[in-house]
Amino acid sequence: MTIILGDNQYGKAETHVVRVTRDGATHEIQDVNVSIALAGDFDASHTEGDNSKIVPTDTQKNTVFAFAKDSIGEIEQFALRLARHFVDDFAAVHRARVSIEEYLWARVNVGGSEHAHAFVRASAEKRLTMVTSTNDASWVVSGLSDLVLLKSTGSEFWGYQKDRYTTLEETRDRVLATAVVARWRYANLDVDWGSAFTHARTALIDAFASKHSLALQQTLFAMGESVLKARPEIAEVRLTLPNKHHFLVDLSSFGLENDNEVFYAADRPYGLIEGTVTRDDAAEPGHAW
Amino acid sequence: MTIILGDNQYGKAETHVVRVTRDGATHEIQDVNVSIALAGDFDASHTEGDNSKIVPTDTQKNTVFAFAKDSIGEIEQFALRLARHFVDDFAAVHRARVSIEEYLWARVNVGGSEHAHAFVRASAEKRLTMVTSTNDASWVVSGLSDLVLLKSTGSEFWGYQKDRYTTLEETRDRVLATAVVARWRYANLDVDWGSAFTHARTALIDAFASKHSLALQQTLFAMGESVLKARPEIAEVRLTLPNKHHFLVDLSSFGLENDNEVFYAADRPYGLIEGTVTRDDAAEPGHAW
Amino acid sequence: MTIILGDNQYGKAETHVVRVTRDGATHEIQDVNVSIALAGDFDASHTEGDNSKIVPTDTQKNTVFAFAKDSIGEIEQFALRLARHFVDDFAAVHRARVSIEEYLWARVNVGGSEHAHAFVRASAEKRLTMVTSTNDASWVVSGLSDLVLLKSTGSEFWGYQKDRYTTLEETRDRVLATAVVARWRYANLDVDWGSAFTHARTALIDAFASKHSLALQQTLFAMGESVLKARPEIAEVRLTLPNKHHFLVDLSSFGLENDNEVFYAADRPYGLIEGTVTRDDAAEPGHAW
Amino acid sequence: MTIILGDNQYGKAETHVVRVTRDGATHEIQDVNVSIALAGDFDASHTEGDNSKIVPTDTQKNTVFAFAKDSIGEIEQFALRLARHFVDDFAAVHRARVSIEEYLWARVNVGGSEHAHAFVRASAEKRLTMVTSTNDASWVVSGLSDLVLLKSTGSEFWGYQKDRYTTLEETRDRVLATAVVARWRYANLDVDWGSAFTHARTALIDAFASKHSLALQQTLFAMGESVLKARPEIAEVRLTLPNKHHFLVDLSSFGLENDNEVFYAADRPYGLIEGTVTRDDAAEPGHAW
Repeated sequence: MTIILGDNQYGKAETHVVRVTRDGATHEIQDVNVSIALAGDFDASHTEGDNSKIVPTDTQKNTVFAFAKDSIGEIEQFALRLARHFVDDFAAVHRARVSIEEYLWARVNVGGSEHAHAFVRASAEKRLTMVTSTNDASWVVSGLSDLVLLKSTGSEFWGYQKDRYTTLEETRDRVLATAVVARWRYANLDVDWGSAFTHARTALIDAFASKHSLALQQTLFAMGESVLKARPEIAEVRLTLPNKHHFLVDLSSFGLENDNEVFYAADRPYGLIEGTVTRDDAAEPGHAW
Repeated sequence: MTIILGDNQYGKAETHVVRVTRDGATHEIQDVNVSIALAGDFDASHTEGDNSKIVPTDTQKNTVFAFAKDSIGEIEQFALRLARHFVDDFAAVHRARVSIEEYLWARVNVGGSEHAHAFVRASAEKRLTMVTSTNDASWVVSGLSDLVLLKSTGSEFWGYQKDRYTTLEETRDRVLATAVVARWRYANLDVDWGSAFTHARTALIDAFASKHSLALQQTLFAMGESVLKARPEIAEVRLTLPNKHHFLVDLSSFGLENDNEVFYAADRPYGLIEGTVTRDDAAEPGHAW
Repeated sequence: MTIILGDNQYGKAETHVVRVTRDGATHEIQDVNVSIALAGDFDASHTEGDNSKIVPTDTQKNTVFAFAKDSIGEIEQFALRLARHFVDDFAAVHRARVSIEEYLWARVNVGGSEHAHAFVRASAEKRLTMVTSTNDASWVVSGLSDLVLLKSTGSEFWGYQKDRYTTLEETRDRVLATAVVARWRYANLDVDWGSAFTHARTALIDAFASKHSLALQQTLFAMGESVLKARPEIAEVRLTLPNKHHFLVDLSSFGLENDNEVFYAADRPYGLIEGTVTRDDAAEPGHAW
Repeated sequence: MTIILGDNQYGKAETHVVRVTRDGATHEIQDVNVSIALAGDFDASHTEGDNSKIVPTDTQKNTVFAFAKDSIGEIEQFALRLARHFVDDFAAVHRARVSIEEYLWARVNVGGSEHAHAFVRASAEKRLTMVTSTNDASWVVSGLSDLVLLKSTGSEFWGYQKDRYTTLEETRDRVLATAVVARWRYANLDVDWGSAFTHARTALIDAFASKHSLALQQTLFAMGESVLKARPEIAEVRLTLPNKHHFLVDLSSFGLENDNEVFYAADRPYGLIEGTVTRDDAAEPGHAW
C-alpha cells in the first residue's frame, strides 16, 4: 500500500475589487469578488515542497487587479479572460476555475435625476458565475443567490406519506418562502451574458409567483423549466431552495382566530429542496461543475 | 460594604413575525423582528428567585403575536401599542422598551403587472424603531441600518495631523463608501411615521451624494443636518458610519497606471465615525435612548 | 433654531495584530483585535472639513502595530499605553477609548510534550478590555464574551405573573443555557490584570454551576456577586445573558416519554437578561463606560 | 427536446437536538445538529405535485427527536440508524444521507471537582459525520471543522513561478495558519468511531506542528498521510485549508525593525488549498461523497 495524492486544487479566494469607469462626469462602478482555483501538475509541491510550478496565490490576486484595469464587463467575460490566462500562460495549469460574485448597485436619485457618481447597494442578491477552462475548452455556469421570495397564498401541501412520526397537518393554503440559489449551465460560449442573466432571473421569479404550488419540489421544477424555456442556450439549471418555514401561530388560547394572518418566521430547522432541471438532449457537462 | 443590584432589564428578543393582510385577492405583507425589554420592580427575582412580578418572556412573545392579529401598521405605532401595554397593564413594569426592525419587500412584477400575493425581498436595508414608555410618557427613536452608499469621486482627505506613525498619503480624490446606521429621535408623538421615515431616508442619501466631502466627519454632519432640515419633528440624529475603505491598487509594477479605476475593497480594519447632530433648542431626550 | 454638533468620536476599528515573542526556540503568541475611538476638539472637521486636528485612523492603526513591537503584555496594559498616547500626545484629543478583544490559543501537545511554536485556537471565548483615558485619569473595564454555559438540571421557573397571553407551563426542572457577556469595572489601576481576569472568570462559572436557579435573573445576580466577592478591586459587574432556550420535545404522540432527556435547542426568539451588580460604596464610574 | 428532471434530493436541515443522559446525579450531554437528505422516486412531486411518496421534512425532524430518546451515542452510529430507517422503511427512498455536526462540551470544574450537571462549550471546533445509505450498503465519512492552527515558524515559501504580475517576496520564515476542514472516508463500518476520530484529529495536529513546511500544499499532504498511517480503516482524507495570511508589518518608517514579531492577520483575500490524500489500493468510494 502506498499513500498517494488525489484530486487537488489551490488558488486565491475572495479578491474583492471595485472598478470605476468614467465617461466624463458620469461614472459607472462594478463590484466583484473573485475566487480562483487551479489544478494541474502540482504534485511536487505536495510531496516534496517543490514549488517550481506553483503560481502563487498572491500573483493570482495581482492578476485580478491588473485585468480589472482593462475593464471587467460582464462577469462571464472577465472570468473567461482570467481562466484562459492561467491555463494558456502556465504549462503546469491544466484546469483553471474562476468564480465571481457580483454585488449590485443602483445609481442614487437626487431630486428626480440620477446622480453622476453616487450609488446605493441595490439588494442583497448576488449575480454569480463560475468559469472552468482546460487547454481545450471552457465552460460557463452562471446564476444568482440570495433572491428571497415569498407567496402569501397559492401554496398547498397534502397527500404525503404518513408514519408513526408524522404530526404535520395537511394544508390547502400556506405561506411559501425561499432564498433562491440558482446556477445554470450554458451549452456554449456564444451568449449575450447580460441579457441571458436578466431573462433567467425573470423566468425564475415569474414561475415562483405564477405556478400554483402543491409542493416546493413542484415549484422548483417549474422554475427550472421556466429558465430553460426562456433561453435555449441554457442546458441545465440547478436549484437549491430552502423552505423558509412560516408557521401559523395558534392564537386560539387568546380567544383570537388566525385566518392565515399571523406567522412565525422560523430559522431552523428548515426544509432543503435541491434539484436539477435539464433537457433530454442537453450537451454533456464536461468540466462545467 | 454590601453587594447590590444596579440597573437591570429583561425581555424577549427577536420575535420574528410576518403579518399577511388580505384585501380580496390582493395581499399585503409586513415582516418585523420585535425585541422587548422591561425594567421595574424586579429585584426579588434577582435576589430571592421570587418571580411573582415577572412577566415571562414567553408571554411577551405571545403578546407580539396576539397584537399582530389586529394589524401592525407603521412600526412606530406597533411598538407604541406594545410598550404601553406592558407599562399600563403590569404595575411592576416601570419602563418598557420595544425595538423593531422591519424587513422590506416589494411586490413581484409579472409581465408588467404587480402580482397580487408574490413578493421579493427588496434590499438588505432595515427600517428601525425603538420606543420607550414609562407610566407618564413615551419616546420614539426611529432609523435605518444597512444602507450601503458609495461615491466614486467628490471626496478628499488631506490637511490632517502628522506624527512619526503617519504614512497615509493625502488625496484630493478618493472613493468614499459607508454602511449607514442612522437613528433619529422625534420630539413628540404627533408624527406621520411613514412619511417622516421616507423623508429622513431621502435626506440622508441626498446629503451623502450631494455634499462634496473633505472628511467622512463632514459628510456625517451634512447627513444629520439634512434630516433635521427635512423634518421639524426630528430633534436629533445619531449616525454611525464605518469608513468602508477602498484602496487604490498600485499597478505600476505591472506597467499600468491606475487613475482611480481599480480599488481593493478592504474588510478590516475600518474607520468608524460616530456623531450626533441636533438642534440647540431640542427638547430633552428623557428616556428616549 | 441652529443645528449643532453633539457628541462624537472616531477611530480605527478592528486592527487585528498577532505578536510573536521568541525565547530561544520557544515562542509565545498573542492575538488581539484593537479598536480605538477618539473624542475631543474635532468640530471643525465636521462643520468645515478642516482636518488639521484629526489624527487619521490610518495613523492609529500604524500606532497599534508600532506599540506591539515593544510587546503587548496584558491587554489592559496595552490598551492603557495606547489610550494615554493619544490623550497625551495630541492636544485635540480629550478622551481616548481603546477596546481590545483577545483570542485565546493553547500550545499544541505532540507526543506528550508541548510544542515550541505550534498553537491551536483554544475556544471561541474572548477576553475583553475597554480603557478610557482623559487628560486626568484612566478607567479600565475588562470582561469576556462567548462563554457558553449549560446546566442540565438545577434550574426552575415558576410563580410568575399570568395574564391572558400566558401559555408557558411552570417547571421545577429545566435546562438552563446562556452565552455570557460579562464586563467588570475596576476601582483603580493597581491591579494584577491577569490574575484578576482568571479569578473573575472562575467566579462567573462557579456561580452559574453552583447556584440553584429559580430564574436566570437570580443566576445573573449570583454570578455578579461571585465576581465582586472574589476580587475587591472590582467595583461593578455588568452581565448580558441570553436565555438560550432548550425546549423539551413532546414525544407522547410517538408513544414515548420524555423525562427531561430530549431538547430542541432554539435560536430565536430568546430571552435576554441584563443586569448590573455593584457595591453600595463603589467608586463613581466617571468615564469608564 | 423535452425538459426533464435530473438529480434531486430533499430533507430537513439543521435539527438541533441536545440529549441529556442521567446516571444518578451525574449527567452527560450531547449536542448535535442533524441534516437529512433523501433521494429516490420523487419525480411525481416535482412534475405533478403528487406528494404520495414524500416523507415530509417535518416527519424527518420528529424522527430525529424520537431516535434521540433511545440515545445518540457516537454520531456515526446515530447517523447510520437514521439513514437506514429512511431507506429501509420507505420504498420510495433509494438513498438517504444524514449529516451531523457535534458541538463539544466540557464538564465545569468547581473547586477542583468536576460538576455533575454543569457544562461549558469546549471550543469552536466541530466533529462531523456524513452517512449515506442505499438499500444495499452504507458509507461513512467523518471529519472535523473549525480547528484553527498556527505555527509561528517552521514555514517557508520560495522557488515558485514568477511572471509579470508577481510581487510576492520569497521567505524562509513565515507564520502559517489555517482553519482545518478535514473529512475522511472509512473503508468499512467495523470501526471504533470515537477512537478513530480522536486518533485522526491528533494525527492532523501532529503533522501540522511537526512537518517543516515549504508550502501549505506540503503540509496538507503530510496531514492526510498522518491520518492514513494512524488508522488503517480510513481510505481517504479530503482537506480544505484556507491560508489565513499573517503579513509581516513594515515598521521601518517608524525606525523599528520587525524580526518576525508583529503580524497583521488579514481576512480576505485568502489562499485556499484543497486536496485529497488516499491509498493506491483504497476501496471504491461508491456513494460515500
